[in-house]
Amino acid sequence: MSHPVSNDYVHSLDRQYVFHSWSTQGALDPLVIAGGAGCKLWDYAGREYLDFSSQLVNTNIGHQHPKVIAAIQQQAASLATIAPATANLMRGEAAKRILSHAPENFAKVFFTNAGADANENAMRMARLFTGRDKILSAYRSYHGGTGAAIVATGDPRRVPNEYARGHVHFFNPYLYRSEFDAADEQEECSRALKHLRRVIECEGPNSIAAILLESIPGTAGILVPPAGYLKGVRALADEFGIVLILDEVMAGFGRTGSWLALDQFEVRPDLITFAKGVNSGYVPAGGVMVSQPISEYFDTHYFPGGLTYSGHPLAMAAIVATLDAMAEEGIVDNARHIGQEILGPGLRALADKHSLIGEVRGLGLFWAVELVSDRQRRTPLPAALMAKLKSGLLERGLLPFVVENRLHVVPPCIIQEPEVRQGLAAIDEVLGTL
Amino acid sequence: MSHPVSNDYVHSLDRQYVFHSWSTQGALDPLVIAGGAGCKLWDYAGREYLDFSSQLVNTNIGHQHPKVIAAIQQQAASLATIAPATANLMRGEAAKRILSHAPENFAKVFFTNAGADANENAMRMARLFTGRDKILSAYRSYHGGTGAAIVATGDPRRVPNEYARGHVHFFNPYLYRSEFDAADEQEECSRALKHLRRVIECEGPNSIAAILLESIPGTAGILVPPAGYLKGVRALADEFGIVLILDEVMAGFGRTGSWLALDQFEVRPDLITFAKGVNSGYVPAGGVMVSQPISEYFDTHYFPGGLTYSGHPLAMAAIVATLDAMAEEGIVDNARHIGQEILGPGLRALADKHSLIGEVRGLGLFWAVELVSDRQRRTPLPAALMAKLKSGLLERGLLPFVVENRLHVVPPCIIQEPEVRQGLAAIDEVLGTL
Repeated sequence: MSHPVSNDYVHSLDRQYVFHSWSTQGALDPLVIAGGAGCKLWDYAGREYLDFSSQLVNTNIGHQHPKVIAAIQQQAASLATIAPATANLMRGEAAKRILSHAPENFAKVFFTNAGADANENAMRMARLFTGRDKILSAYRSYHGGTGAAIVATGDPRRVPNEYARGHVHFFNPYLYRSEFDAADEQEECSRALKHLRRVIECEGPNSIAAILLESIPGTAGILVPPAGYLKGVRALADEFGIVLILDEVMAGFGRTGSWLALDQFEVRPDLITFAKGVNSGYVPAGGVMVSQPISEYFDTHYFPGGLTYSGHPLAMAAIVATLDAMAEEGIVDNARHIGQEILGPGLRALADKHSLIGEVRGLGLFWAVELVSDRQRRTPLPAALMAKLKSGLLERGLLPFVVENRLHVVPPCIIQEPEVRQGLAAIDEVLGTL
Repeated sequence: MSHPVSNDYVHSLDRQYVFHSWSTQGALDPLVIAGGAGCKLWDYAGREYLDFSSQLVNTNIGHQHPKVIAAIQQQAASLATIAPATANLMRGEAAKRILSHAPENFAKVFFTNAGADANENAMRMARLFTGRDKILSAYRSYHGGTGAAIVATGDPRRVPNEYARGHVHFFNPYLYRSEFDAADEQEECSRALKHLRRVIECEGPNSIAAILLESIPGTAGILVPPAGYLKGVRALADEFGIVLILDEVMAGFGRTGSWLALDQFEVRPDLITFAKGVNSGYVPAGGVMVSQPISEYFDTHYFPGGLTYSGHPLAMAAIVATLDAMAEEGIVDNARHIGQEILGPGLRALADKHSLIGEVRGLGLFWAVELVSDRQRRTPLPAALMAKLKSGLLERGLLPFVVENRLHVVPPCIIQEPEVRQGLAAIDEVLGTL
């Protein structure tokens, strides 16, 4: 590294040597980022960005939180890595803290590297525990990129990857683009539950190991479920002896203004998967929270799954420091407060002003703005205009999270009112130019 | 963490809250490790262990290498995490260094969290590049724990996890327990290649996307392939237009006394997967090295795979520092030298002395000692005696890697002669008691 580090140097290194996720490689022009702090990021030329993406909705605690950075450095100085078969202090402390935020009756944590392998292992547990084969999951969902996780995923990225068996998809509630021709949330809820019951009955309840569902489908559009939906899914799972897995990879650990998103829906699943927010992704980590009955089953039955970096000490130290800092600094409360008082009302005010906005929905710091070229018909804004929106926001120093025809507004959970106002002003301005 | 940290405290935290890999949870009694340096580890009571396992054969550079620890701490201070869609200095530098150790004509690196998702993505690339479905892999193999990786795996851990399609297994060479009734390495090689050709022909060459093979199957028994085998596999792949993926997750980055194990076999694959040794697992990381033709294909075709922590800055900084330190300090040469001059001859001398040893095989610091109760019949030593071997070694302060009836001797690649002699003496002593 004798080169002077510049945006150009880093960009050219990337283009020459790095193969990117979810892309056509020849078409890439990646943004260079040199450093960050809190809700800010900057490049090597000193250009700053306000992070309204939390990267891939993971840096809930913001960039470079000093307590988490210190914990990583301290753990690195003492023991960077150790095999998962050993007992490790930080691993135990991390599991204990995670379980303190789980519903009652959750007993153990199985650690993975990220969300995909968390879902892989939750599905594995459900299949072994029930002795059944099929996994039901929603079309509007994302559960990860590995073999079974990508086939459990409902979104179109699944299709070129359909090399796993035993997966069945159902339609989940999404009133704005209802699959059930529902007129309101209550109708959407009851029809979606009736549909799920019919899928279960037609697939054969005795063949179904698990229903896998994001508490709030994230990348699919931040689809806050109608009141009663998750409770209804739980009742169906109970009726047919099916394991309920809630995927809290994106929604968990503060994002929605509660520790877990499921806390807001009176539902107790059998397995909970997590990653991202648990340590803000400072070190790769994910895992499965395991409820007592499933945990007990594996006390006497072999669990045929595992990985080299399960419960990696650096990742565990980052979890301990993150969860402690979030509690000490009231970061979850901040997400709820800022969402309820500032960001939610601010986005709704933009919707009143701009006819391009078809719907605003969300809670905590987990919001989707649905952009349409025709409000009546709810026609998604064309890709070219979405690209203009994205580049306009970047030009104004706002790093956005854009998916299809939606702007997901998902800043770090530490964000304060002035930064929210700054971001809202940028969105307002760019919407005015479209 | 107001408790005094002791072995008991850490052990009880683990048993209460942590769900372990590849285990019946009720039967666990995990070893507590507090810290380490070089080839040594210790617990909270000051008891020391000489690490002859490199954990899960990943700490090639030893424990707590000061340059790698400093690089992690420094990167943590500057930018712990950033989304994979950005361009990042350490990501580019890591990819550049990795490719400098690849065969000619390798162009890019796709980063993952570990070896399993490296293999997942290599299989994905092969299927999309060829437009074909099937993946051929060996019965004696381990390729990871996620959906497709575990089904590509040949060992019995595959069986309860067979939820992926398009996987076919073949027998790979293993003269000591030949599937082909071969009398010598040459015969084993030609018969194994004939068998693979017949599997390809019978499965239909036009349906086969890839042959996935560990350069040296590791967990399966450190099965150094006969001279000419990998070259023969390459020729079959060429003949039928099949992508050759070599899995270097365990064998790569110094373990065998060369940068990659494939360097010793005159073979050039199309994709290479790696993890573990690339940064000694100090931060979770893995990836796929992509050859020019496949890289070019994805310049104009969308790659439908990805993950949140792809090219994670902390992991990348650890790769850069690890590969630089390995080069500067001659760690790969050390692995070759110690293997050839000290460890290999030492293990062979033990085989001369103890009739319990059926075969010793390996290269570099990658050795398997096959234990048998009957040398003539090659009867695997019963599990109870293997457990006694393991506990005997632990009592003598040696941390071993035991798989089925084998002792895998896989110390860090920085090990020096006195530590090798100390470990050999412990093995000698315990074998004498069995």
